[in-house]
Amino acid sequence: MVQLSQPRLDAAFAALSDATRRGVLEQLGRADASITDLADKFHMTLTGMKKHVSVLEQAGLVTTEKVGRVRTCRMGLRRLEEEAVWIERYRQLWDARFDALDQIVEELKRKESVHGRRKSQSA
Amino acid sequence: MVQLSQPRLDAAFAALSDATRRGVLEQLGRADASITDLADKFHMTLTGMKKHVSVLEQAGLVTTEKVGRVRTCRMGLRRLEEEAVWIERYRQLWDARFDALDQIVEELKRKESVHGRRKSQSA
Repeated sequence: MVQLSQPRLDAAFAALSDATRRGVLEQLGRADASITDLADKFHMTLTGMKKHVSVLEQAGLVTTEKVGRVRTCRMGLRRLEEEAVWIERYRQLWDARFDALDQIVEELKRKESVHGRRKSQSA
Repeated sequence: MVQLSQPRLDAAFAALSDATRRGVLEQLGRADASITDLADKFHMTLTGMKKHVSVLEQAGLVTTEKVGRVRTCRMGLRRLEEEAVWIERYRQLWDARFDALDQIVEELKRKESVHGRRKSQSA
């Protein structure tokens, strides 16, 4: 059973709530990249990209290493395990809830149809 | 193939980045609830809870209906399908990337061991 940490989930979902940051993660899934590479690729200033990388780093989704003047970014050790588990549990709740509603609707339809038949028989 | 909408992903992940909002979703997975019920349950002011519900509503994760003075909250129609798909794709990238790194490390170890043997043979 995966233990879910609320602060880790907060940080990871917040990090994922931006299309550029999701793009950076996908990019690093293909190859490591410097902040400069990433800024170029996403048409951003260095300062803007540094902020995005910092959010990803704080969430454990990216690690960075500075060698000389170049800071290289890599995928972090967190592979969104807890986030996948949370979402999967929610989807199970959702399915169960909507299945239950479907059953109620079916039950109402059945009663309606019995009631309708009785009315037409008595008419 | 599920089409991923970046604005929808932004809104849903932002909505999920707060422990209270995740708690509200789990709660509504069990039963519908009024804003007052939810505020009580999560020890919040009505105003605070209204804001959280509004964020969830804008992301399509909750629907609300006002009858008289009571606003009832229900699970929305979005079941985090796109979010699950995005996370799953990322996990596949992650696995592939770390598998590739593992192979490089194994290769280096193998070379190191051959090199070590040669050195000890020549000594």
